[in-house]
Amino acid sequence: MTGRLTIIGTGPGNPNQTTPQALQAIAAGEVFFGYGPYLDRLNLRPEQQRIASDNRQEIDRARAALDAAARGGNVCVVSGGDPGVFAMAAAICEAIEAGPETWRRLDLVVLPGVTAMLAVAARAGAPLGHDFCAISLSDNLKPWELIERRLRAVAEAGLVIALYNPISRSRPWQLATAFKLLREILPVTTPVIFGRAIGRPDEHFTVVPLGEADQQAADMATCVIIGSAETRVIERDGMDPLVYSPRAAGP
Amino acid sequence: MTGRLTIIGTGPGNPNQTTPQALQAIAAGEVFFGYGPYLDRLNLRPEQQRIASDNRQEIDRARAALDAAARGGNVCVVSGGDPGVFAMAAAICEAIEAGPETWRRLDLVVLPGVTAMLAVAARAGAPLGHDFCAISLSDNLKPWELIERRLRAVAEAGLVIALYNPISRSRPWQLATAFKLLREILPVTTPVIFGRAIGRPDEHFTVVPLGEADQQAADMATCVIIGSAETRVIERDGMDPLVYSPRAAGP
Repeated sequence: MTGRLTIIGTGPGNPNQTTPQALQAIAAGEVFFGYGPYLDRLNLRPEQQRIASDNRQEIDRARAALDAAARGGNVCVVSGGDPGVFAMAAAICEAIEAGPETWRRLDLVVLPGVTAMLAVAARAGAPLGHDFCAISLSDNLKPWELIERRLRAVAEAGLVIALYNPISRSRPWQLATAFKLLREILPVTTPVIFGRAIGRPDEHFTVVPLGEADQQAADMATCVIIGSAETRVIERDGMDPLVYSPRAAGP
Repeated sequence: MTGRLTIIGTGPGNPNQTTPQALQAIAAGEVFFGYGPYLDRLNLRPEQQRIASDNRQEIDRARAALDAAARGGNVCVVSGGDPGVFAMAAAICEAIEAGPETWRRLDLVVLPGVTAMLAVAARAGAPLGHDFCAISLSDNLKPWELIERRLRAVAEAGLVIALYNPISRSRPWQLATAFKLLREILPVTTPVIFGRAIGRPDEHFTVVPLGEADQQAADMATCVIIGSAETRVIERDGMDPLVYSPRAAGP
């Protein structure tokens, strides 16, 4: 017997930003795997099974979910934001490639969601209005030297940069180092946006120039967007400024 | 009197992927500006006014919408996907910066949506599972040389590349040129994904190696995702392959 595995993105945290497709999949699911705080947001019914695990145990969680789906049943794996952006979809695929043949025959569905950088960008105006990239600042699974090389390459090429996983208790210095590196390439006036829990009661949102960007403004759940040299700030009386990257770009 | 301007992203086309927040804003809107085919998807009520314009008239549309909002009323500007990704939010910000002071005082709200690359990636597996970028291949508003420089920089840095606006009647050769350039940097086996209208009846989805990627597989509404050297393909009997980028990266 072969079941179904649905990898669900719930969006950035505001329940109003979860797609109807994701809500339907959650209503139909029987067993749910995910990071505890994400599962808490789902309002599951008593008969829906909840298997919470720590945020760092992605590959174990992926294997457990695949195993449960292979035994039959309707299994869901839940990510915040979009499951394909620094989240569970890649871990599931890794586990499938290394796992038994039966896992390849599963009915696997990935449901996209609004990823954090899109919610933060919408709150700011349109900082991703031109070419941009998303880079994870975590050096748990890649060497720090590679991250520095990538940051340098994209900043020199004029891309706006969205940083995921900017900081954590076990990675305390990486964000400050990234700011320092970027200040060597970009103007100190380049806007930097810190966005966290956008659209929720505990929302945190600030815009500062790169020259004054302080890693203390970020925590694990913050998405940091660093403009390009062309990104602009429009000041507005009594409101947050608008930050946007023009559609046109110079030579 | 000052009205409200809401910039709405409707998601990639499957109505089930439009957020409840966007649906509520559409229900409350009085006047709608947008590209005709996007407005057609909204199921507006007879009293809701529809002002359709051509896809290339973004800045004129932005000014007209700002002007209508400044005269009062609840004005909506509609984009497919996410309005902040190569869409209307940046055009509105540009118009505000160049426009009258009253436009800065408008109640401006941007509602994010699932952008095309996320829907295509979900259909494929997890090709954006690691660092990635989004680049518009349109040289209407930036020089082609800059696009080539950016493609080279991100491919050499190991980022997965999502291409927006890959081809159009007036830009017939750019995608083939991009593939040629990328074949000089990436292995010819690198997976290339063509995704169009994912989740709709006219869905088009293919995966080919970079060495065989043909621009004929794309049209104006296609999002093309080009893997990094680390992106992998898992073949599955009787199903589309899974394409994913591992969370870990070398060297």
